[in-house]
This record gives sequence, structure tokens and C-alpha cells, in this order.
Amino acid sequence: MSNKIGFLGPQGTFTEEALLSSMQVDSKDLVPFPTERDVIRAVDKGKIVQGIVPIENSIEGSVNITLDTLMFESESIIEDEIVISTKHNLIGGKGVRLEDVATVISHPQATAQCRKYLSKKLGHATVLAANSTAEAVKKVSEGTKDMVAIGTSLAARLYNLDVLESDIEDFKDNKTRFVVVGKEPAARTGNDKTSIVCFIFEDRPGSLLQILQEFAFRYINLTKIQSRPTKKALGDYCFWIDLEGHIEDEPIASAIKCLRCKLRTVKVLGSYPRAGENDV
Amino acid sequence: MSNKIGFLGPQGTFTEEALLSSMQVDSKDLVPFPTERDVIRAVDKGKIVQGIVPIENSIEGSVNITLDTLMFESESIIEDEIVISTKHNLIGGKGVRLEDVATVISHPQATAQCRKYLSKKLGHATVLAANSTAEAVKKVSEGTKDMVAIGTSLAARLYNLDVLESDIEDFKDNKTRFVVVGKEPAARTGNDKTSIVCFIFEDRPGSLLQILQEFAFRYINLTKIQSRPTKKALGDYCFWIDLEGHIEDEPIASAIKCLRCKLRTVKVLGSYPRAGENDV
Repeated sequence: MSNKIGFLGPQGTFTEEALLSSMQVDSKDLVPFPTERDVIRAVDKGKIVQGIVPIENSIEGSVNITLDTLMFESESIIEDEIVISTKHNLIGGKGVRLEDVATVISHPQATAQCRKYLSKKLGHATVLAANSTAEAVKKVSEGTKDMVAIGTSLAARLYNLDVLESDIEDFKDNKTRFVVVGKEPAARTGNDKTSIVCFIFEDRPGSLLQILQEFAFRYINLTKIQSRPTKKALGDYCFWIDLEGHIEDEPIASAIKCLRCKLRTVKVLGSYPRAGENDV
Repeated sequence: MSNKIGFLGPQGTFTEEALLSSMQVDSKDLVPFPTERDVIRAVDKGKIVQGIVPIENSIEGSVNITLDTLMFESESIIEDEIVISTKHNLIGGKGVRLEDVATVISHPQATAQCRKYLSKKLGHATVLAANSTAEAVKKVSEGTKDMVAIGTSLAARLYNLDVLESDIEDFKDNKTRFVVVGKEPAARTGNDKTSIVCFIFEDRPGSLLQILQEFAFRYINLTKIQSRPTKKALGDYCFWIDLEGHIEDEPIASAIKCLRCKLRTVKVLGSYPRAGENDV
């Protein structure tokens, strides 16, 4: 049995930072993958025992490739969730002064999230793109002293660079939620969440209402609801729903039993301990 | 009164391609903006008469910055929607052969959406990042003949380059939905959609149910529903809802009137003609 844990790479990403913030793992057991789908499929095939992928960000929204892979392609489940603040850092060589910076490198999404900071403090610099924040930090480590990157503090340590300024993102409540995907159902803690997907028979007025009534009747609170096309036909939707409680809690088990009497499929993606900060 | 029309830039983006596919405009009246928020705020301030921004993509999901700006910061409305297939093209100099390509440049999101194609056909090439697909095409136009970009056919024309291969994206049902933001309510056509945001009093079981009941009771179909944090407190949500019909249709007017009796606020973002392909 593999002990490897996969994550959305390359090394030094926010996903690896989230992983290290909440799990004790030997670095030799960590395996980066190029896409969220590759991480989840590697869990399915038993190549890794767990995989960590982003599922939503407070600025960018849901990561549909994660939702869709879990909904349509995978039999793995969610074992845990991790919510971290997405803190962007300006990273460069020791003692670099902002006025001497000629080039800023990062992933365009990170650059976009620090736009105000960049125009105020580094308006004189050229902004170059990289394929990930980790790649940007690597480039700076190989480049001249007038180059800086926007990235994680993990990447700064990895490439022996300094964090010149931290928390440079424009919106301070920038958070990302990750899920730990695996095969082992998590034990009930009393403060849990459950993710399910409801596939309806056809798109008709009131379908979602039927679903929500089962939860409202049992005083079950929902923390996320999102419609997604099934990709089978125009207007054919399914619903990703996160709710408070564990699948072993009687009201939730009962609600799902009733839903299965009237929906095409109800897929339970897992119950897992609720993270501290859930407001993504 | 300004005749200018704004879009998410720079020139040659998918947003400009969507705009030109559905509107007759003089190119001198087009103004690129760096972010979705900047486009919408420029409409608010009367600097432009209309603005075009992406609102959701079938792979990437909702564009939260568009949703949040319209929900929380703007008094402008949605006048129209445009849905286009997000077709990626390999762009380079005339007659460039794939085996001679050394470098592929694009926005990392475009690169990610063409991963299978790249590994099959251009596994020998280095993949570099750009801040937008349009910037990537511009770089290729200024570079050596062994460089190619992934971008729009509009950008290829703009920079006098050839589309070497088209439709190179991994998932063929890759579509993006854009909205036209302005100040003038669209006339009823009989095949319309309406976007609203419901702000509830507090997060409690059954809030969303109360909302959906009003629509189900009147046989109004919903095409999108998404919860979003209000950013005021943890667990404080509002709901973005797209529904079939026009605000002047009696059932919709009546549903919204009833919702206003029990919710904190119902913000009507506009009624607009339904685009041909809505399955984003």
C-alpha cells in the first residue's frame, strides 16, 4: 500500500502550503501533480493514499475541475477539508530595495490579486508571467538581483530567498478551501460537514426545491450550493451541496434516504471534520 | 454622453472576441480595462455606455469578481448575455511547422486547457507564461519564428500571424458566458432571462427554500443558483439566481414582490434576451 500523498504542484504552491499546515508528512512521501484531475485520478488508482486539491477560493470561486472530477469521474471520497488565508508575499534576494526592482514575476492570478499594491509600490517595474507562483520564485532564484516574485513563504524557503513584504494582496479576506481526497471515511467528530451531489431526473421547476425541503424539514443547514451542468444535454443540471453534520447523523441519513426515492442519483462525496474558517 | 464600450482587455482577448461577435461597434469606441471590476465601475461612473465582462466558464466556473462587483458595488444592470465557445488556437508565423517550434507562450489557464494537445504534439517545446493570451500572441509577433502562442483568432489577425491549428482545447464543450453591463433595461423579447440577488436576514435552515418556493409555485425555472458569502460575517450568505423570464412577466414580478416581504433585500440585476447556448 502506497504511503504517498499527492498535491497540486509544483513544489511551493499554496496547495503544498495547505497540506503542510495541517498534516504531519515526510517530505519524501509528497508527490506533485500537474492538475487537480491528475491528483484525484491517482487516488482512484491507488497510486497515492491521499490527494490535496483546491476546491474554492473567495475571489476566484469554485474550482470546477475539482468539482467535476469528483462528481463525474471518481469513486474516491473527501476525508478532510483545509481552509487557509491566501497570503501573497513579495519574494527576492536579501536586502533588495523596492526602488531597485525592475521585474516582478508571478502567475497572472496572483498578480491580479495584488494589483493595487503593485501599482502603488512597484509601478516602475515590468510584470512578467509564470506558469505558477512556485515557478516564479524559482526564476527569481536563478535570475538577477533586480527581479522579485509574488509567491508563498514556503517557496521562498525552498529557493533560499527572503520575504521582502508579506500580505500584499488587495483583499485581505482572500481564503482558499482545499479538500483531502482518499478512500477512508472520516470518523464522526460532532462538528462535521458532508458533501453530496444530487442528479435530478430532468430539469423542471421545483427540482431543487424538492431537495432543499428534505433538509429544511430536518433543520439541516447548508453551507454551499452550486448548480453544475451534467454535460449530457443543455439545461441538464446537478447540484453540489455541502451541509452541516455527518452522514451517520440520523437526520442526514434520513434526508438522503428520502432523496434517493425521488432523484436519479444521490452521490455522497464524504463526511469530514469542519475546518476552522469556512467562509470561502 | 459617452459612446464608448469597455471590455476586459487587453486587445485580442476572448471578451473582445465575444463583443465583436454580437455587437456592431466602431473600433475607435472600444476601451480595454485591466479587470472585470474596472469595466463595471466605469459603467457606473458613466465613462462608458456599456461594458462586457466574463461571468462564467464551463471549466473554470463563475467569475466571482464579476458576481461580487455587480452584487455589492454597482448600480448598473445586465442588458444582455453572450455565450461563445472558448476555442483555443495555435498561432505563429506563416508556414511554421510543429516540429520546428521551440517555445509555446500563453496564459497559464489557456495552457492548462490544452495540456493533452501540447503533450501529444509539442512535447519537445518549452511552455512559457504570459499575462493574457493576447500578450502571448503579441510576444510571438515580436519574437523568432520558432515561437508560437495559444490565443484567439482575433489576436492572430491583430498581430498579422497565422492560425496554425484551431480547436486545440482538451474539452470541446468549453464555453464562456459574458454579460453586457449598462444602464438601459432591455426590452422584453419573450425569450428572456433575469438575474437577481437575494440577501437573507440571517443564515438559518430553510432560507433558500423560502426563496425557491416562490419560484416553484409560479412554475418559474432557474438556470443558475450560487451561494456567495456577503463578506460581513462568517456563514452569512446571499444567493445569485438566474431565472427564465422577464421582470415584466407577471409571475416573476409577483415572485419578487413576495420575496421582498420576507428577505432583507432583493436586488434585480436585470432582464435580458437569452443567448442561444446557455449550458455553461
